Amino acid sequence: MFDNTSSLTRFLPILDWLKTYHRQDFADDLFAGIITAILLVPQGIAYAILAGLPPQLGLYASILPPILYAFFGTSRTLSVGPVSIAAIMIASALTSTAVAELGNPVQSALVLSLESGAIMLLMAVLRMGGLVNFISHPVLTGFTSGAALLIIGSQIPQTLGLKTPACGIDIACYMTYLQGFNSTTLLLSIGALALLLLFSQLLPTLLKKMRVKLAIITAISKCGPLLTVVLATIAVSLLTNSGQSIAVVGVVPSGFPELSINVLTESLGQRGQLLLPYAGFIALIAYVESVAIAKVTANLRSEKIIPNQELIGLGMANIAAALSGGMPVAGGFSRTMVNFAAGARTQMAMLIAAALLAIAVMFCSPWFTNIPKSALAVIILVAITPLVKIKDILHTWVYDRGDGIAEIVTLLGVLVLGIEEGIALGIMLTIASNLRKTSHPHIAVVGRVPETEHYRNIKRHHVETWNHLLLIRIDESLTFANINYIEEFLVTELKRQPNTKHIILIFTSVSDIDTTALEALESLNQGLQIAGKTLNISEAKGPVLDKLQKTDFFEQLKPGQVFFRTEDAVKQLE
Amino acid sequence: MFDNTSSLTRFLPILDWLKTYHRQDFADDLFAGIITAILLVPQGIAYAILAGLPPQLGLYASILPPILYAFFGTSRTLSVGPVSIAAIMIASALTSTAVAELGNPVQSALVLSLESGAIMLLMAVLRMGGLVNFISHPVLTGFTSGAALLIIGSQIPQTLGLKTPACGIDIACYMTYLQGFNSTTLLLSIGALALLLLFSQLLPTLLKKMRVKLAIITAISKCGPLLTVVLATIAVSLLTNSGQSIAVVGVVPSGFPELSINVLTESLGQRGQLLLPYAGFIALIAYVESVAIAKVTANLRSEKIIPNQELIGLGMANIAAALSGGMPVAGGFSRTMVNFAAGARTQMAMLIAAALLAIAVMFCSPWFTNIPKSALAVIILVAITPLVKIKDILHTWVYDRGDGIAEIVTLLGVLVLGIEEGIALGIMLTIASNLRKTSHPHIAVVGRVPETEHYRNIKRHHVETWNHLLLIRIDESLTFANINYIEEFLVTELKRQPNTKHIILIFTSVSDIDTTALEALESLNQGLQIAGKTLNISEAKGPVLDKLQKTDFFEQLKPGQVFFRTEDAVKQLE
Repeated sequence: MFDNTSSLTRFLPILDWLKTYHRQDFADDLFAGIITAILLVPQGIAYAILAGLPPQLGLYASILPPILYAFFGTSRTLSVGPVSIAAIMIASALTSTAVAELGNPVQSALVLSLESGAIMLLMAVLRMGGLVNFISHPVLTGFTSGAALLIIGSQIPQTLGLKTPACGIDIACYMTYLQGFNSTTLLLSIGALALLLLFSQLLPTLLKKMRVKLAIITAISKCGPLLTVVLATIAVSLLTNSGQSIAVVGVVPSGFPELSINVLTESLGQRGQLLLPYAGFIALIAYVESVAIAKVTANLRSEKIIPNQELIGLGMANIAAALSGGMPVAGGFSRTMVNFAAGARTQMAMLIAAALLAIAVMFCSPWFTNIPKSALAVIILVAITPLVKIKDILHTWVYDRGDGIAEIVTLLGVLVLGIEEGIALGIMLTIASNLRKTSHPHIAVVGRVPETEHYRNIKRHHVETWNHLLLIRIDESLTFANINYIEEFLVTELKRQPNTKHIILIFTSVSDIDTTALEALESLNQGLQIAGKTLNISEAKGPVLDKLQKTDFFEQLKPGQVFFRTEDAVKQLE
Repeated sequence: MFDNTSSLTRFLPILDWLKTYHRQDFADDLFAGIITAILLVPQGIAYAILAGLPPQLGLYASILPPILYAFFGTSRTLSVGPVSIAAIMIASALTSTAVAELGNPVQSALVLSLESGAIMLLMAVLRMGGLVNFISHPVLTGFTSGAALLIIGSQIPQTLGLKTPACGIDIACYMTYLQGFNSTTLLLSIGALALLLLFSQLLPTLLKKMRVKLAIITAISKCGPLLTVVLATIAVSLLTNSGQSIAVVGVVPSGFPELSINVLTESLGQRGQLLLPYAGFIALIAYVESVAIAKVTANLRSEKIIPNQELIGLGMANIAAALSGGMPVAGGFSRTMVNFAAGARTQMAMLIAAALLAIAVMFCSPWFTNIPKSALAVIILVAITPLVKIKDILHTWVYDRGDGIAEIVTLLGVLVLGIEEGIALGIMLTIASNLRKTSHPHIAVVGRVPETEHYRNIKRHHVETWNHLLLIRIDESLTFANINYIEEFLVTELKRQPNTKHIILIFTSVSDIDTTALEALESLNQGLQIAGKTLNISEAKGPVLDKLQKTDFFEQLKPGQVFFRTEDAVKQLE
């Protein structure tokens, strides 16, 4: 897709689709943009409240940031804005003792946006887009599931009209606590839940049976959250008039805030220092989750995501969030899927959604005041529950025990130790398991499959072997991390087959031999020569041969030889 | 060697050689033990002074610790005792601000011994002997060279009778400083150097020409340090009587200290906490260096070193050092080589050396008082200079640029940042480079070598290819760390060969597919199916097939297939 593009297009991926943009594309994007905007309004308000911030920080984050992403990002359908996982990470940062003591959480949130954006841009400059490789899917799934559970835990009290409990593990306390629930709020929550499930589950099935056009079904079903909010707000207005007290969003200021430049100086001060590690984790997770989501939709349309450019797109979006008074942003899973399903062709859909959000902020703010928090909590609960991936975790457990353990440990880490500690634990686990795997390479003693030139593991296949030949295939590059293991394997095999005269190392899979491994091979060869055995090598690749040529290793090997094919080695030595 | 041994022998390797011990073995060991003891006396005193400790801490460390190692260690020739690299690490710990403020450096040294011993035992229990794999040779060489340079820098003032300079980068200051040298001390140092070089270089060559027996040559040449010390001490006694002032070792107490039990309680207090990170680094380096040295001599005699058991041997030795008033110990390179060259068969040689040291401590202490520090500095300089491995560093640079950079960065890290920071930097570099390597696996598009069933890289060999077949050999297990890279490679190749109908992934080197990689393969397969192409797999190994069988991956592949050999796949699909 980017084959014949200029470097300008590489830096501004928007140019790539703008030059071939058609009227039909616009019609599709307009529709998808409206649908996504309808979803964005309640999500923006809800995620800001989830983060412990005034609602407008979620709305502002839905305007300028997606516009910047549209210019710099490589995904055509990713919907950038407030997301639930980032929101709970922000909440975790804002409630940490040192940060809370500073006061002014809004300012802290803006600093988080600025810092996470700057970190992403720095990573882009250092070309660290590949870092996405160092959070494995199991760790990411474990983290997401854990964070989702935390969010669910934080939202359930809201649906009951309760404050966060302060009971620890005292069950009796919880019983008393729960008895303080507000029945009106509970009824409102149940009504909201019913309405949401009606729109997301029942109605689509019904409409499909009635053979309504898919685009229309999508449009109708995605209006659920907005309709829920509208109806709940009306209900609250009526109930408040009749004297009931229900927690509501409160006053949302109209229009835009001034560009917050003082956030720049605050980032360099004490607040900035305190928040930096939190911003690092938010940047990492926002980036990794966004790329994962972007890839899902890109794969379905054979489009390509360029990880490093994503860092630029998301970094710009977060800096825009900071300057325009918004909370940190990322690509949202449910919103992106809605955008995609509604037929979005390009980021034009997101530009349209941003324009609609701007209109909403300018003219509709007074309507947001009476939105009940309980309805928003229900919307969050419905959106977040699918992120607890019990089924995936079970699958992983069955398929790969190590991955399964990493997944569950990360999940428990998030729940027990906290969000940041959970991710850190997951990353350390990933690196440790990677090191462990590379230090225990697969090695096989092989023999010839009869009547072929094909050599396979003697343990798995019926193969020919020779009494004085030991053929060993090493399935990994030789490095300091695994050469000891390989040496031990060889010594053990030689003890088992003391009549061996020639050892043939099959280097099909050896792409590199580092200094430590070369020294070990040399000393191994010395030992073998003293014992009257020869060390031979077959099927070594070009780059490996080139590298060894720079040393006197082949001289040292003699009478051991280097063979092009294993077959040649066997024919000559058997 | 340990094939039919009981678990008791595994835990007490001394039993392995004791049961077949012969009179001739004892004769050899007695000779080697005497030679090593002759070397140990000046080394013990010198390394204690290098560490900033009273001389007896080096002597005590040469008695009980090697005895414990003899019982629990697996090397038959390793000489455990005070070593130069550990000594400079101890000096670094003792002069760090917080530790220096506590006072009583002797107590701190004992705590370091106890803690590093305890850390080694803990590592043994956790079966972390494989940790030796995570310090690559280049990092170790860089570290050793850097530490050796630091030691050289610290000893040169001693040979001139000067104190450590405090000039920073003020060259004029150094000029004034150097003018304060003591000419008598300098003459003494030059004399000592001449004597040492005579014994270590000139005399052996001469005696060899005279066809003297090798054992006798070894014996004579290794007496150099002791003779130097004796002559220098006599010279000092004469000079002191004539009014000259020369820095000497000072009073060394006779006999043994009481078992220091209070070191146990000190380790649990503030001193213990402060020293713990230093002890960690000392344990790590002592262990890694000792195993490296032990392996050199073991390889020459086809003996086997068991890393985990080495942790027990060295851990016990260090705890013995702490309780008997000695500084931390490790296997010394030069001493082990001397012991080996002098014909040591078993650790009996070290038991004899320990006995001789005990006799020296009991009866010869008064003789040590007048040993000039300058002579000891010269002995250290001669012993340490070969550890600055300029030639090795150049070799590594030529052979493997990445390893060369790691080596030089570690060396500079030690010199500029400090000992502990240097190692930490080296280890991080090692892990990062390992992760980088595994995330960029070798992948090749292959074709058939004409008239064989052998498939090789199309870039390196003249091979047959087919227009609608794309054969790709992946030379590494598929993991989260490299699957993105592999995916990109495939997409790029498919763009280059748009007519491809069947992709055949050759899994010869794939020993594992983790969860992340499996998900990526599944989504890749979906994309290919949409494009009307099939994904096939050939030469997958048993364990990989077993694992995939647990999923519905093969169902998803259809009409793509799994082939036993690449040849089968090509015959059917061509």
